[in-house]
Amino acid sequence: MRMVDVGSKDKTERVAVATGRVRMSTVALAKIRAGKVEKGDVLAAARLAGIMAAKKTPDLIPLCHPIGLSGVEVEARPVARGVELKATVKTVDRTGVEMEALAAVSAAALTVYDMLKSTDRGMVIEAVQLEHKSGGRSGVWARAHSSAKKMRGAS
Amino acid sequence: MRMVDVGSKDKTERVAVATGRVRMSTVALAKIRAGKVEKGDVLAAARLAGIMAAKKTPDLIPLCHPIGLSGVEVEARPVARGVELKATVKTVDRTGVEMEALAAVSAAALTVYDMLKSTDRGMVIEAVQLEHKSGGRSGVWARAHSSAKKMRGAS
Amino acid sequence: MRMVDVGSKDKTERVAVATGRVRMSTVALAKIRAGKVEKGDVLAAARLAGIMAAKKTPDLIPLCHPIGLSGVEVEARPVARGVELKATVKTVDRTGVEMEALAAVSAAALTVYDMLKSTDRGMVIEAVQLEHKSGGRSGVWARAHSSAKKMRGAS
Amino acid sequence: MRMVDVGSKDKTERVAVATGRVRMSTVALAKIRAGKVEKGDVLAAARLAGIMAAKKTPDLIPLCHPIGLSGVEVEARPVARGVELKATVKTVDRTGVEMEALAAVSAAALTVYDMLKSTDRGMVIEAVQLEHKSGGRSGVWARAHSSAKKMRGAS
Amino acid sequence: MRMVDVGSKDKTERVAVATGRVRMSTVALAKIRAGKVEKGDVLAAARLAGIMAAKKTPDLIPLCHPIGLSGVEVEARPVARGVELKATVKTVDRTGVEMEALAAVSAAALTVYDMLKSTDRGMVIEAVQLEHKSGGRSGVWARAHSSAKKMRGAS
Amino acid sequence: MRMVDVGSKDKTERVAVATGRVRMSTVALAKIRAGKVEKGDVLAAARLAGIMAAKKTPDLIPLCHPIGLSGVEVEARPVARGVELKATVKTVDRTGVEMEALAAVSAAALTVYDMLKSTDRGMVIEAVQLEHKSGGRSGVWARAHSSAKKMRGAS
Repeated sequence: MRMVDVGSKDKTERVAVATGRVRMSTVALAKIRAGKVEKGDVLAAARLAGIMAAKKTPDLIPLCHPIGLSGVEVEARPVARGVELKATVKTVDRTGVEMEALAAVSAAALTVYDMLKSTDRGMVIEAVQLEHKSGGRSGVWARAHSSAKKMRGAS
Repeated sequence: MRMVDVGSKDKTERVAVATGRVRMSTVALAKIRAGKVEKGDVLAAARLAGIMAAKKTPDLIPLCHPIGLSGVEVEARPVARGVELKATVKTVDRTGVEMEALAAVSAAALTVYDMLKSTDRGMVIEAVQLEHKSGGRSGVWARAHSSAKKMRGAS
Repeated sequence: MRMVDVGSKDKTERVAVATGRVRMSTVALAKIRAGKVEKGDVLAAARLAGIMAAKKTPDLIPLCHPIGLSGVEVEARPVARGVELKATVKTVDRTGVEMEALAAVSAAALTVYDMLKSTDRGMVIEAVQLEHKSGGRSGVWARAHSSAKKMRGAS
Repeated sequence: MRMVDVGSKDKTERVAVATGRVRMSTVALAKIRAGKVEKGDVLAAARLAGIMAAKKTPDLIPLCHPIGLSGVEVEARPVARGVELKATVKTVDRTGVEMEALAAVSAAALTVYDMLKSTDRGMVIEAVQLEHKSGGRSGVWARAHSSAKKMRGAS
Repeated sequence: MRMVDVGSKDKTERVAVATGRVRMSTVALAKIRAGKVEKGDVLAAARLAGIMAAKKTPDLIPLCHPIGLSGVEVEARPVARGVELKATVKTVDRTGVEMEALAAVSAAALTVYDMLKSTDRGMVIEAVQLEHKSGGRSGVWARAHSSAKKMRGAS
Repeated sequence: MRMVDVGSKDKTERVAVATGRVRMSTVALAKIRAGKVEKGDVLAAARLAGIMAAKKTPDLIPLCHPIGLSGVEVEARPVARGVELKATVKTVDRTGVEMEALAAVSAAALTVYDMLKSTDRGMVIEAVQLEHKSGGRSGVWARAHSSAKKMRGAS
């Protein structure tokens, strides 16, 4: 078991974008839209939890390198059948930030679940996936069809 | 914003079971089945990451109560189109452990992704959901149809 | 050096309330009131940071006991010359939660500073203090004159 | 909500100095001076807690960048009406360390409070503020009048 | 892989005592005895690091239960050929604190190493072991011959 | 007390190798060799715990610098009288990674202990020591005689 040696890689700017969503009942979604969730502002909490989780990634995922992050942005917004999450993470380092972006989306989604679970325990976290990454030896990678778009299209 | 007061609730045994899966390419799945993943034993790492994440849940999810956990088990196994994850968390406390079970599944799924991402960046974490919970005032809750079964059925 | 043994104390409900404030320039305060802070919603971030810090208290303060918390609420609101912070922490355990309440106020205050520091580096965190505590052998303690009131009175 | 992108900034040496104090009763202060605090060496514990908190800053303050620190020094010394704290933090990175210095002072102050609270629950943490910072685009900033000096002068 | 379920065990008082030592050169030991270590007070730092590590045990050791601790004491003192460490940890819970005591000793030993490594990189951490535990179903366990005594005897 | 300023040192590749072992009864060792430990795969858990502990080093050891790590590998294997552990840690930074390597070995050893303690509470963690380090101003350091070899020779 090993955290692979990246010491010989160049420090370059690397960016990763991940998305995901929490599918929920109409009632739960209406509470978010109306700002009527008892525990507080769901979307603000989700965004902050996502940003903080990006920073905790090496602590959560055993073989992830601890690196500095130069920027993190997490978006959370209500869509047709739930809440859509998007994280953009940047670094100038020897390894990519795909895991940081995916961890940010996961934590933001879990936070949405937590704040609404008394209303809807059946919520499902789905389509947590990398959308785009750039930088490093493997260069640019982009998902062929964004499922996030599909969800919006289906609404 | 507040972590709701559970001080007046009884300490009772509470159990939560959550599941999720990582959908991946045939090539990535074959590497797991053959034990040929360069970074090491994917399923062992996912299980441990899941258990450790259950313990970090209050640190990840802003309004989650910090509580003692009496037991955590995480299963990870290859299925038809990917890896299926299941976490069972128990406590004897004043609040449930749904979030701990969901966080364990999420971290285990992220770990699977991390260890295979050089093979398949398109993997998708999906169907992260509560299956069952018991204990506390709200009693037993069970999901009507397990999507995990659907995935196996589809294979 | 030791974390004192509280094993023989009773588990009782204990509550602590702490306050503090961040004194800032008129310009910085106006930005908060207008919701024009570039980094995002200052007061929401401060509340969440406070709640999360309450949970991290035993990790921050060397001799603090790790205990479960049954409830945490953090308030942050603009007052005459800055932002006033108030944390209420509850537990049902063998030791009090004064440190958790003070840590919550401190982290919330630091978060306010962080989000506004590009506008006003001269902000001062002041009057971080216990207002009230109840429960346990030492019973109720209450501050004679709340400096928080004095600040409001001065406005 | 976002952790601002600092990827385009230069890595330069940056230093920040923060101070603060814990105002306390004559009895509490005498215990420190006499080395008679039951829990152990207050000033040594405060210094260490401050240094460790500087390293935890990105975990405490939601939008703080995780960066390497090249040096941290925390001083804690009895003054006329309490304990004065001073933290000096250095980095060679793309963003400043004001928050690390302020977090170090805050944690050191909380540690002083914790170790003496059975003697004096009325202690107040005050004047937690940046004294000086250098490095980066915004260059040098220095506080006009150090309140720390005022406290010493008043003694 | 699982954290075993202790939910059916009784909450009883449990105590564990562990010891260990750092064997070092005469020069390094003399620096400690003379209080001439550049980085600061070695023994105070070791004690605090040990106490804090006891609290972090479930975060360090994958299958350890997160539990409350009712007391922790760490001793560090120079002996004939190095520094001897001893940790006593107590809880009132469903599982023992052997790991907390061993983790406290290990972290205290690592801290001693860290503060003296520029003087002696050859230091060895040895005899980290449980001395005694009580409480719980398995009752009292005591080590037959304390190796700590042997070390003192050899001096 | 201070974390020494390394800001003026060069960023160079630095490597540290540490070893240690857990001495145990024949019965405990046979369980590992047979893969019959109830809690799961001891050696996989030890390796992962070691890697994760390397990343937590600055959080465990008060005066350790927080730095990025470019690679970590932990080996754990049964030998004549127990389990031998070896950690190799690399960075490209201003300070060495001896503490990270020693912390990795310590956490791996504690994990071995934890998973076998119901079989053998008398296990001893011993010979946790630096074997080799390179990079930085002080250049290469190597232990004269590896005690790990002695243990293998004795088997």
